[in-house]
Amino acid sequence: MKDLLAKATTLTEALPWIKRTWGRTVVIKYGGAAMTDPALRESVASDIVLMKLVGINPVIVHGGGPEITSYMERLGLPVEFHDGLRVTSEEAMEVVKMVLVGKVNKEFVAAINTHGRLAVGIAGDDANLIRAKQKDPRLGRVGEVTSIDTTVVTKLIDDGFIPIIATVAAGEDGGSFNINADLVAAELAAALDSDKVIFLTDVDGLYADFEDKSSLISALTYDEAEEMIAGDALSSGMIPKVAACTHALRGGVRRAHILNGTVSHALLLEVYTDQGVGTMITHAGDTGPLPAKVNGVTF
Amino acid sequence: MKDLLAKATTLTEALPWIKRTWGRTVVIKYGGAAMTDPALRESVASDIVLMKLVGINPVIVHGGGPEITSYMERLGLPVEFHDGLRVTSEEAMEVVKMVLVGKVNKEFVAAINTHGRLAVGIAGDDANLIRAKQKDPRLGRVGEVTSIDTTVVTKLIDDGFIPIIATVAAGEDGGSFNINADLVAAELAAALDSDKVIFLTDVDGLYADFEDKSSLISALTYDEAEEMIAGDALSSGMIPKVAACTHALRGGVRRAHILNGTVSHALLLEVYTDQGVGTMITHAGDTGPLPAKVNGVTF
Amino acid sequence: MKDLLAKATTLTEALPWIKRTWGRTVVIKYGGAAMTDPALRESVASDIVLMKLVGINPVIVHGGGPEITSYMERLGLPVEFHDGLRVTSEEAMEVVKMVLVGKVNKEFVAAINTHGRLAVGIAGDDANLIRAKQKDPRLGRVGEVTSIDTTVVTKLIDDGFIPIIATVAAGEDGGSFNINADLVAAELAAALDSDKVIFLTDVDGLYADFEDKSSLISALTYDEAEEMIAGDALSSGMIPKVAACTHALRGGVRRAHILNGTVSHALLLEVYTDQGVGTMITHAGDTGPLPAKVNGVTF
Amino acid sequence: MKDLLAKATTLTEALPWIKRTWGRTVVIKYGGAAMTDPALRESVASDIVLMKLVGINPVIVHGGGPEITSYMERLGLPVEFHDGLRVTSEEAMEVVKMVLVGKVNKEFVAAINTHGRLAVGIAGDDANLIRAKQKDPRLGRVGEVTSIDTTVVTKLIDDGFIPIIATVAAGEDGGSFNINADLVAAELAAALDSDKVIFLTDVDGLYADFEDKSSLISALTYDEAEEMIAGDALSSGMIPKVAACTHALRGGVRRAHILNGTVSHALLLEVYTDQGVGTMITHAGDTGPLPAKVNGVTF
Amino acid sequence: MKDLLAKATTLTEALPWIKRTWGRTVVIKYGGAAMTDPALRESVASDIVLMKLVGINPVIVHGGGPEITSYMERLGLPVEFHDGLRVTSEEAMEVVKMVLVGKVNKEFVAAINTHGRLAVGIAGDDANLIRAKQKDPRLGRVGEVTSIDTTVVTKLIDDGFIPIIATVAAGEDGGSFNINADLVAAELAAALDSDKVIFLTDVDGLYADFEDKSSLISALTYDEAEEMIAGDALSSGMIPKVAACTHALRGGVRRAHILNGTVSHALLLEVYTDQGVGTMITHAGDTGPLPAKVNGVTF
Amino acid sequence: MKDLLAKATTLTEALPWIKRTWGRTVVIKYGGAAMTDPALRESVASDIVLMKLVGINPVIVHGGGPEITSYMERLGLPVEFHDGLRVTSEEAMEVVKMVLVGKVNKEFVAAINTHGRLAVGIAGDDANLIRAKQKDPRLGRVGEVTSIDTTVVTKLIDDGFIPIIATVAAGEDGGSFNINADLVAAELAAALDSDKVIFLTDVDGLYADFEDKSSLISALTYDEAEEMIAGDALSSGMIPKVAACTHALRGGVRRAHILNGTVSHALLLEVYTDQGVGTMITHAGDTGPLPAKVNGVTF
Repeated sequence: MKDLLAKATTLTEALPWIKRTWGRTVVIKYGGAAMTDPALRESVASDIVLMKLVGINPVIVHGGGPEITSYMERLGLPVEFHDGLRVTSEEAMEVVKMVLVGKVNKEFVAAINTHGRLAVGIAGDDANLIRAKQKDPRLGRVGEVTSIDTTVVTKLIDDGFIPIIATVAAGEDGGSFNINADLVAAELAAALDSDKVIFLTDVDGLYADFEDKSSLISALTYDEAEEMIAGDALSSGMIPKVAACTHALRGGVRRAHILNGTVSHALLLEVYTDQGVGTMITHAGDTGPLPAKVNGVTF
Repeated sequence: MKDLLAKATTLTEALPWIKRTWGRTVVIKYGGAAMTDPALRESVASDIVLMKLVGINPVIVHGGGPEITSYMERLGLPVEFHDGLRVTSEEAMEVVKMVLVGKVNKEFVAAINTHGRLAVGIAGDDANLIRAKQKDPRLGRVGEVTSIDTTVVTKLIDDGFIPIIATVAAGEDGGSFNINADLVAAELAAALDSDKVIFLTDVDGLYADFEDKSSLISALTYDEAEEMIAGDALSSGMIPKVAACTHALRGGVRRAHILNGTVSHALLLEVYTDQGVGTMITHAGDTGPLPAKVNGVTF
Repeated sequence: MKDLLAKATTLTEALPWIKRTWGRTVVIKYGGAAMTDPALRESVASDIVLMKLVGINPVIVHGGGPEITSYMERLGLPVEFHDGLRVTSEEAMEVVKMVLVGKVNKEFVAAINTHGRLAVGIAGDDANLIRAKQKDPRLGRVGEVTSIDTTVVTKLIDDGFIPIIATVAAGEDGGSFNINADLVAAELAAALDSDKVIFLTDVDGLYADFEDKSSLISALTYDEAEEMIAGDALSSGMIPKVAACTHALRGGVRRAHILNGTVSHALLLEVYTDQGVGTMITHAGDTGPLPAKVNGVTF
Repeated sequence: MKDLLAKATTLTEALPWIKRTWGRTVVIKYGGAAMTDPALRESVASDIVLMKLVGINPVIVHGGGPEITSYMERLGLPVEFHDGLRVTSEEAMEVVKMVLVGKVNKEFVAAINTHGRLAVGIAGDDANLIRAKQKDPRLGRVGEVTSIDTTVVTKLIDDGFIPIIATVAAGEDGGSFNINADLVAAELAAALDSDKVIFLTDVDGLYADFEDKSSLISALTYDEAEEMIAGDALSSGMIPKVAACTHALRGGVRRAHILNGTVSHALLLEVYTDQGVGTMITHAGDTGPLPAKVNGVTF
Repeated sequence: MKDLLAKATTLTEALPWIKRTWGRTVVIKYGGAAMTDPALRESVASDIVLMKLVGINPVIVHGGGPEITSYMERLGLPVEFHDGLRVTSEEAMEVVKMVLVGKVNKEFVAAINTHGRLAVGIAGDDANLIRAKQKDPRLGRVGEVTSIDTTVVTKLIDDGFIPIIATVAAGEDGGSFNINADLVAAELAAALDSDKVIFLTDVDGLYADFEDKSSLISALTYDEAEEMIAGDALSSGMIPKVAACTHALRGGVRRAHILNGTVSHALLLEVYTDQGVGTMITHAGDTGPLPAKVNGVTF
Repeated sequence: MKDLLAKATTLTEALPWIKRTWGRTVVIKYGGAAMTDPALRESVASDIVLMKLVGINPVIVHGGGPEITSYMERLGLPVEFHDGLRVTSEEAMEVVKMVLVGKVNKEFVAAINTHGRLAVGIAGDDANLIRAKQKDPRLGRVGEVTSIDTTVVTKLIDDGFIPIIATVAAGEDGGSFNINADLVAAELAAALDSDKVIFLTDVDGLYADFEDKSSLISALTYDEAEEMIAGDALSSGMIPKVAACTHALRGGVRRAHILNGTVSHALLLEVYTDQGVGTMITHAGDTGPLPAKVNGVTF
């Protein structure tokens, strides 16, 4: 009975947070180990289904990762990076797209749909969702986003689905472009007028001193984040995440979160408990929980 | 962190139950100490708001209770019962109605609406929701239901509200009737095609041997319940509750629950955890959880 | 046949007025003898049903009156007024609310619903319709309105119902407040963008000289009304009515009427005949009938 | 004031009848002097606008009459009748159609539209509303109805308009047919699931003895009407009217009325007063007013 | 097979033009030989049905023409013109209206409806579509448009119909007015926010030198057209057409076309092929095809 | 001009066929050279866009083909077939899915979307569209369809999109299955209540004698087709196509077409010209064009 009471308390503790997220669209950048480890994938999928049923409209954005490299190596294609960007030949682009759209996307769609007819996976070509142009001729088919048309995303949400978006873009030249999933998540969140974007990574968040695991930063302002990017306070892997966060905030998103996707149910804890986990970045003064919205009204 | 994990587990445990109740209408007969004790009232209100936001359409039905007697005594009106039914003069009927509609109903409406623009309180007169005729001339304005018109209830649900229904009926003769709230809850659940009706009481449920608190019955079939009513296995206070349960099942409702409303968050535990609390009555063979419904589909 | 011709003429005379009110929301402050006398109540109810079927969306607002005093006396509670406002203890507030919501409101709901599934009675708590704060600590639970949320009223109108509103307010402090029904009617009319508010009283309207029954004023400008309030031209009972009228006009309502609810079918005569009855207050220059609206168009 | 009271009483007397017709579609066959006399036309138009605003969906059906003959004579076309049917050459058909659609129809449309954007005039060709085939080669372009497609009529009603229908039919052979307006009114009433069809004529109704003006029959059963048609109790002019009435009843219409359109406001008196005027034909046992419908419900 | 290939190529050639017109409203002024010659009428009708099914919302506007004169002569009414305008007595107005509304309009409605339940014919009286006042007392019932209320036109389009509009106007004085069909087409196109208005005439378009049939002008700017009107470059018959074109452009229409309605399928060729036929007038710089609109988006 | 006339005639010839297909859903199995040759792909894409804009709701179903084999060979995976079915290991299944969903599907989506925001590509996992179980353990991940849930397809159609469906199925065991695209097209056509399914192949249709190219069969009955399958009249490659056709007819589809996708615009010629191309299979007696549907009505 004591145990039951604890459970009831947990559910009850979630109430104010459910109110604060109810009816809101939340963009989740899915990646890291949560994408490659089947058990974590199932766990994240189940968390997202729970969020959906509890009133949030989650929109999932993902990139590819190690599986692209693995297929490229098996196919004997050169694997090369410049400044963290994969040099992408026409041939490599085809592999990138097949892995992202035909493997990673559908694996996550399937994980969610064990819970019911919920997820629909699409890519940047579909309904001209993401268009891009070449970033730098030396990088080949690496693109930068020129426009986002959210029509198909909002239609899928209106139809009751969870959109799962693979980040390849349709090129103005008819070909495809390999684009940065973090930035796309940020831009899509802005284009959808979403209040919140969450980046699932393999680390707990940002550290004041990343040697010291006890120095995790729970909340950070936009200006502090920009300073960290400009300075050398961030590991090279975290710079693009933080940059995506501030990019989202510049686009009008009010909360950007960096979460550890390898932590069991990190999404739920962040969204539905008092403590939260990970690092949240906001504009200075715009901290604290978002005001509750019930029955269409904010108050 | 261990604590957080336990919380996450609890939320996750709720998922299959959320799926099984999502989009369903559940009638809750509210009464007993949960109605008179302000702290319990707030707790039940918050549980109901949580249920609403998590996909259930709760419909609350309540009667009056001790406060009616108290006002009648203060006004010098005779307080008399026949077979558990309050002898109700015209004058008493006015007091019954004022207490139910003007006090008990609005107190619960207010408790819910601290969470947002959610509850709307109505009574049997409104939109001709409940009509009744005299049951027995010796009992005065005690009525028995002749028809239920659920239009206003379904409209309020469609409009996003939680209907809170005070059980007085409009009489065919233009007056009002004092009616049994348990039976009305059962009949309304049937009229609304609800799968589930929950009776909040002050006891934990039914006991095989009500001297022995360890003999609580978790699940009971319709036939067993009817036998208990016919035999002498039930305390006199529980007979009308169990009779209301079987009445609901005859009307097509598939689950009738008797819960202890004085237990913290009993509603949530019953609806959203694996163990459940209280006693559930179903037709034999129709046990186990109701099949999940996601996105408009049962599966 | 001559008689029939007269009838036909009357119906025909109503046509231009039906056009001028068709599709408009009209707030009616119901009170006085029309509220306490059953025959008048039925007559007013039937007039309002007629208005509803003939294209108007009536919204009824009412207070309590003599029945509150009577119950307070029967319960031995002190009855005291300051400047026309009832000193309202916590205990008295409970009685005020029970009488208003549980008796007066439902009596009028029932009177209308003998004509069909039309009226739904609500109070300030419902869906947070009316919120208030304390006006003056010496008056106890007497409140002044801080916000009106018309959502539930417009939803009920859209659903085809006639909303009947008991004027008690939800307090920011969780308690209830006793509020002035005339002012609420004025504020609600403004909040609903209603063109017309009608105050049913027990007098025929305003008199130039209230000793002289032949000096009834049919039409008055806002400025003249304000002058009358400031001067001593009004009986003390009429001051709050006229003040409510000018309050409504300040809020954007274009016609405020004071009618004698004890006159048979005064509402119909005012709304649907050439002569009109009672006193109408408008902004100077904005006199004459409102332009007709047919099929969604004003012309 | 006494006069006002009488007016109020008349409006009030209309209430039960407004309830009984509210939301119903009523087909009115417009013809006789009401069609040719401008003052009567305006009066009937204003009655129909009143009916529209008071909740009825009137659908007007009309034929041509004397103006056709007049134009035919002016154009030197032979005017000939067989058994009351106009022998209609191709050339005559063109004149019939021009007079009906281009003159009579638009005159009535214009009369209604002085009250607002309400009437839309159409003919049998429009949206293939009425199709016909030749009745008898000797009669030329006289047709008998083969199908009615009510789509355009119900769309116009849904769009808030009053449809005014000129009774020429589209022929299966591509030409037009001259059809009987009384029968079309009866068939359209049946096709629209209308409860009531009204024939405006120049006589007060049927007489038991048509020499004796005091023998007007207020109510008649279907069987009695059929007998009258078979016997010689009817003037030859009334036979087609009564036959159209029984035709409508066979098609499922419940009330067929013959009214004198030259009597001021006969439509209003029939529909909205206790006495009624004219003759009503119903199935035996299905007499008395139709049950009231309020807010979508019959009761 | 070669023949088939040519057909396929033609269909394919139509694609970009279908995209450019899809979902757009196009006003077509129907007149000339296409109106009087049955074979041409059927051909134009079939072209318009094709346009409708292929995504355009065609709205047809027509006048009367030679048939009015013929009927007037047969009726012995004087036929007289001043500056190209028919002097229209009250008696003549009746004939004008009958021919336009009862003959020309329904002939075209019938021609379209051999293809299905598509066309609905209306006139200026219907739903107060076109209102006018007298232009010049010497011309009698010749009117100039004072207002256009497009409600009935847009409702008919929304209901899936093709509106066919006879250009007689409702007079402010209760009578009818004979109005210029070309100007009405221009004004209606502007009122409907239509991008395109097409005038079907009996000539191929405008000629640089109208002695020289090889000098047909394909495209013309607004300024050039105004110059041609002011100069003497136009035949007197073409001046009103070109004036209607520039009138439409002043009202916001972007393309005005003059087409030869006697050329087989001129409408289809103009709208769906690369070459086009006839003369198009646009604002300078706003030439070339309108941008494509697919699925609600222009691009 | 002669050339123009020919064009106009072609467009006009299309009209009856546009009526017959307007508003209908047509399933097109896309495959063969039309899928691998970029020029043909663009041509088919443009034909499908044309069909969409001209009133058809095309639904595209495709498989993979030679590109799967090529990738498997490059990855060193064994390529083996049993009775025309690809033996599919887990590893091969991943490749099959990547090529189908990530390459073939998106290539066709992109080809269509050069015309606008039209195509959305999905696979069997999405919204649980296609579920399958293992067909034969020796074939590994080759599946047979157990259920089709068309929800996402009809939603995408309602949203204005063209669904492009890659035929991989979600396995009941959580894995994916390689399924026969022809059969899926047939089953999907049946599940969507489609009247027509079209198989694009590399041959002109069925031949009475496939040595003799002049013996192409234009129309075939279901029974004749079944006989051909049972006999040896068909090339082995055509047997599954014809079997898919008869499978569709058994499921209620009324027309199954086998077309040569390498013939320019074969789709348009089949659907919109009098001659048609390819072979059509129907139930005996149910030949000729489907009845026209205009504005929601078949006639």
